[in-house]
Amino acid sequence: MVVVMRPDAQKDDVRRLTERFQKMGLEVGVTNGVGCTILGLVGDTSCVDMDKIYLDPHVERVMRVQEPYKKANRKFHPEDTAVTVGNAVIGGGAFSVIAGPCSVESEAQIIAVAEDVKHSGAALLRGGAFKPRTSPYSFQGMGLEGLELLMEARAATGLPIVSEIMSPKYVDVFEEEVDIVQVGARNMQNFDLLKEVGRMSKPVLLKRGLSSSYEEWIMSAEYIMAGGNENVILCERGIRTFETYTRNTLDVSAIPAIRRMSHLPVVVDPSHAAGMYWMVEPLAMAAIAAGADGLMIEVHNDPPHAKCDGQQSLTPEKFGHLMQKAGALAELMGKTWVKGG
Amino acid sequence: MVVVMRPDAQKDDVRRLTERFQKMGLEVGVTNGVGCTILGLVGDTSCVDMDKIYLDPHVERVMRVQEPYKKANRKFHPEDTAVTVGNAVIGGGAFSVIAGPCSVESEAQIIAVAEDVKHSGAALLRGGAFKPRTSPYSFQGMGLEGLELLMEARAATGLPIVSEIMSPKYVDVFEEEVDIVQVGARNMQNFDLLKEVGRMSKPVLLKRGLSSSYEEWIMSAEYIMAGGNENVILCERGIRTFETYTRNTLDVSAIPAIRRMSHLPVVVDPSHAAGMYWMVEPLAMAAIAAGADGLMIEVHNDPPHAKCDGQQSLTPEKFGHLMQKAGALAELMGKTWVKGG
Amino acid sequence: MVVVMRPDAQKDDVRRLTERFQKMGLEVGVTNGVGCTILGLVGDTSCVDMDKIYLDPHVERVMRVQEPYKKANRKFHPEDTAVTVGNAVIGGGAFSVIAGPCSVESEAQIIAVAEDVKHSGAALLRGGAFKPRTSPYSFQGMGLEGLELLMEARAATGLPIVSEIMSPKYVDVFEEEVDIVQVGARNMQNFDLLKEVGRMSKPVLLKRGLSSSYEEWIMSAEYIMAGGNENVILCERGIRTFETYTRNTLDVSAIPAIRRMSHLPVVVDPSHAAGMYWMVEPLAMAAIAAGADGLMIEVHNDPPHAKCDGQQSLTPEKFGHLMQKAGALAELMGKTWVKGG
Amino acid sequence: MVVVMRPDAQKDDVRRLTERFQKMGLEVGVTNGVGCTILGLVGDTSCVDMDKIYLDPHVERVMRVQEPYKKANRKFHPEDTAVTVGNAVIGGGAFSVIAGPCSVESEAQIIAVAEDVKHSGAALLRGGAFKPRTSPYSFQGMGLEGLELLMEARAATGLPIVSEIMSPKYVDVFEEEVDIVQVGARNMQNFDLLKEVGRMSKPVLLKRGLSSSYEEWIMSAEYIMAGGNENVILCERGIRTFETYTRNTLDVSAIPAIRRMSHLPVVVDPSHAAGMYWMVEPLAMAAIAAGADGLMIEVHNDPPHAKCDGQQSLTPEKFGHLMQKAGALAELMGKTWVKGG
Repeated sequence: MVVVMRPDAQKDDVRRLTERFQKMGLEVGVTNGVGCTILGLVGDTSCVDMDKIYLDPHVERVMRVQEPYKKANRKFHPEDTAVTVGNAVIGGGAFSVIAGPCSVESEAQIIAVAEDVKHSGAALLRGGAFKPRTSPYSFQGMGLEGLELLMEARAATGLPIVSEIMSPKYVDVFEEEVDIVQVGARNMQNFDLLKEVGRMSKPVLLKRGLSSSYEEWIMSAEYIMAGGNENVILCERGIRTFETYTRNTLDVSAIPAIRRMSHLPVVVDPSHAAGMYWMVEPLAMAAIAAGADGLMIEVHNDPPHAKCDGQQSLTPEKFGHLMQKAGALAELMGKTWVKGG
Repeated sequence: MVVVMRPDAQKDDVRRLTERFQKMGLEVGVTNGVGCTILGLVGDTSCVDMDKIYLDPHVERVMRVQEPYKKANRKFHPEDTAVTVGNAVIGGGAFSVIAGPCSVESEAQIIAVAEDVKHSGAALLRGGAFKPRTSPYSFQGMGLEGLELLMEARAATGLPIVSEIMSPKYVDVFEEEVDIVQVGARNMQNFDLLKEVGRMSKPVLLKRGLSSSYEEWIMSAEYIMAGGNENVILCERGIRTFETYTRNTLDVSAIPAIRRMSHLPVVVDPSHAAGMYWMVEPLAMAAIAAGADGLMIEVHNDPPHAKCDGQQSLTPEKFGHLMQKAGALAELMGKTWVKGG
Repeated sequence: MVVVMRPDAQKDDVRRLTERFQKMGLEVGVTNGVGCTILGLVGDTSCVDMDKIYLDPHVERVMRVQEPYKKANRKFHPEDTAVTVGNAVIGGGAFSVIAGPCSVESEAQIIAVAEDVKHSGAALLRGGAFKPRTSPYSFQGMGLEGLELLMEARAATGLPIVSEIMSPKYVDVFEEEVDIVQVGARNMQNFDLLKEVGRMSKPVLLKRGLSSSYEEWIMSAEYIMAGGNENVILCERGIRTFETYTRNTLDVSAIPAIRRMSHLPVVVDPSHAAGMYWMVEPLAMAAIAAGADGLMIEVHNDPPHAKCDGQQSLTPEKFGHLMQKAGALAELMGKTWVKGG
Repeated sequence: MVVVMRPDAQKDDVRRLTERFQKMGLEVGVTNGVGCTILGLVGDTSCVDMDKIYLDPHVERVMRVQEPYKKANRKFHPEDTAVTVGNAVIGGGAFSVIAGPCSVESEAQIIAVAEDVKHSGAALLRGGAFKPRTSPYSFQGMGLEGLELLMEARAATGLPIVSEIMSPKYVDVFEEEVDIVQVGARNMQNFDLLKEVGRMSKPVLLKRGLSSSYEEWIMSAEYIMAGGNENVILCERGIRTFETYTRNTLDVSAIPAIRRMSHLPVVVDPSHAAGMYWMVEPLAMAAIAAGADGLMIEVHNDPPHAKCDGQQSLTPEKFGHLMQKAGALAELMGKTWVKGG
């Protein structure tokens, strides 16, 4: 941590502050100059509250020089984390695709889609049972019944299932029935929910919030890991910017950035980023080329009649086409593509 | 709703789509032109799913022309809503100030601050018992014990209390103990929580999400209102932009915009918007001048030792100074200032 | 400046870098800790290129602790700068309003508007002769003829005139004919133009770019001042954010922030920020309450037939009404309102 | 164009407005409903000023349904435009890489870099002679002397040269000496400069502004094309968002979006997007995978001593490594890679 004193700070002010830091067990180095004194603090600065130092009337600026996350930090855990669920592996050189409909709508629908995406090489099945919708008047998902249908689709295909949890009250059900628990973008800083999934034994797929920085996103992973659950997969799904042509703006830089900051695997959801089916393929390809450990793609057997997000869903045919191109690219990138079933 | 056909759409394609809308009970007007046919749809279009129409291969664009919110819509409820809690009134020409510390820290602290802010004219006391913190290693609030201390401060001063709920599991406690239930910015689209507070009888102060549009914000209010709780206060607290000098960017335009779109009262939290105590006063003044129905201000008796957000907290003295200027301005704006106790 | 070494940096690496800085005439303070060494640099660090230090393989981070601007910096020039043009004064406790049409359209129009706004208390007349338009097919302004008409309006009313320069080739004409030279938001980092107006003797009104940080905005003022022209007025006119309801998002925090960072006066253009006439008044009031030194308002005698920006223009009547409220508020804020003519 | 009437509009108001549009030669279709009347306008609506219609007191909303650009519009020009310069081709299935230093620094430097990048397969040489710098105190480029050195490097290697124009006064020099004229991000809406380069015969590489929408970017291309110069290459180089870890946020969605909206080629500059050399390769790969027609990469023979942007420059070795991976990917994407010389 670095503390910059105000130009009018006197030697006594600097000395007093220095002693305060030393009492906290920190090493303090002082650089004096005309109109500018800088204190460098070294040691375990995680106990130092920047806000409080700012309130010292002689302090001009406080700057953190170390990351506030530990368990998710690549510095303390240099090897890639790979998350394994059934046959699927995400991270550590392995590449898996999660595919399925935005929401589970019926037994016939979810089983048909599950078989289609497995046939094309998906390793996991996604499907929403509880749906976060902007409007209270929109379809809110089939709920627990939807989870049952997902389990049937898993039984029929062998694909592990990924589904979104929206409330702490379903933690036990998800723990029992779901293979990867998804936390949605709008709940990325629902800290109460993060603590709950931190106590689960199932891996968590944590979507990036619409306007969350990389650091905030990793800090939310840290919440889950601090609770004891270290199997966290980070999912980039587009951020909110001034551009309105796309539903969100896919931030591909997140892939190399997160890989440098953290050891956790990163997957990309091009469907929500684009918001339009015809843009899913180029964005999926871009994600693989930038180093993603996996993809999450919305596929529906009948997009025009989908209960939600039909506009951004691929048909099984288009998905099959994408998978062929994606497979060739993942190979070029040196990944081991894990296919489902 | 307006549907624009693709240039290659044939008469039959237009006819088929027109009939589909007519079966839904809508009036359809067709405007034909060279390379461009426009369908205007009138009636209850809330049943029409834009996504599905987009998937018609002959459709180029779908545009909604009516707001998706009803209960919060000023069109259907032209008079201002005023929320009354004890002596305090927010909205409908009445102006009230909510003040208090970021978090409740001790009995002595919360009672001292409560008395100070009441003395300066605040009508409600705020104080966090459950704190949403970016880091799992930061102080998370005193929890239920904090709520008890807030109740003591209310008993001592007569000021109604405002506190943030972070989990559905505390709905019963908040219903019993708190006067206004705050939903934080990070939970603005925690739809599960919105449904829960929609069943409460206590007014809800709904903070705007960091990157939520006006419409999304009102839709979250609509969730609460659709559950039966129509006493919703909207709170602008700064949005996330590219500018990093301030913690957030206060969006004063939200005040006149929300007043035009909705009948719900709007209050402003300049403390979180600024993130620096010295900027709180000018932003508070700007909010009043733009027509806000109230303010929410962080006040701490000892900011350098505050357990959180000390940097943006006013001392009781600075708060008192702000209240004098604010009172004169509210009067100039024709508001009735409601003082506490 | 602060340099943070990588955890794997050896003593020799630190020594070598330290000597490099000492050769540049800087004081270097070293703080050693486990896994983290911090160098504090004091002296004239404006000669140090952060980019180059970053390229040292043993450096993890470089952080500037001093502002890169000098002439515009309040630290080196604590008193407010006031810009005086004719009777008008902007800054240093004086408050002036600039008003007029988006574009000059005819002699009758500009003279009528000039008389109207003078009558209501405006101190300066604005009018566009050269118009920056998104489309090449839109009205591009009357050009030099427009400047002539502005001069006629000045002769008729005594109001100094403000107009936008878009090309270096008109520097001589503007130097001779215009009282305040406006540089538009889209040209805020047209460095070639900034250098040219830096050589002029007329004050410059520099609009903030749509996505420019406070520091970049001040650095553009620094370009003008470095050229010798120290009469720069900064004009906040809304920034681009994710919110699309308003044309731009007025950033009122810019007013107290710029006042702290710089001694230059700040005026606000609520017309471009809002993009809708009915929102101009609340935003203008917010700007005054936040401490603005002036306003710039679009007024048109016949908005429905304005050649551009009619939607955000006030009629002379509405402008007169705004000026009454604004005058009372400026007085409350302790400003000296300078009226025109 | 679609006009939505206010709920209180009467039949006469609708009739009057309808006649006004009909006099402009437009077809008008009226859809009547309870509380909502919609007018659909078809014909050449480019003559209709949305702002003016908004000012009709009975109008609630005006929505454009057609693009405001013509020459750049893929609808009116379905085939890809390919820009050819010497042996290099950008667009229409051909893929070329532009590489070179941020700024020209000396004869030895630019010739060495030119030979290196040619050797690795670059088809064009970039180099800044006039540099847009945030600070007036930073190196501003070698100016005309820099252009001379670029011409020498072209003579030595046969690579066509790309350089940025910052002022209309150098149009003649650039017309004579440069092969592709670059317009920088900060000048994307310097309309005066756009008009000037629109009169040139040399192709123009138009960088996207930091916060420019796709439509605004294409409208700036339209300015150039309207002037007679139809050889415009669009260059995505990252946009400004809330994320500060990267210098800018690369918007890969721009590639498929622009390809759909326009026939003009799109190249990507990953160096400015990332701002850090180690991120250039993954972003370059992402751009190719998303369908880019070319890349623009900063390469410096001695990044630690580069006069600007050293932090984001690749060494010739790293560039060579990138080109091998990029070549394999471009082939996978079905592009014809054009190598230089």
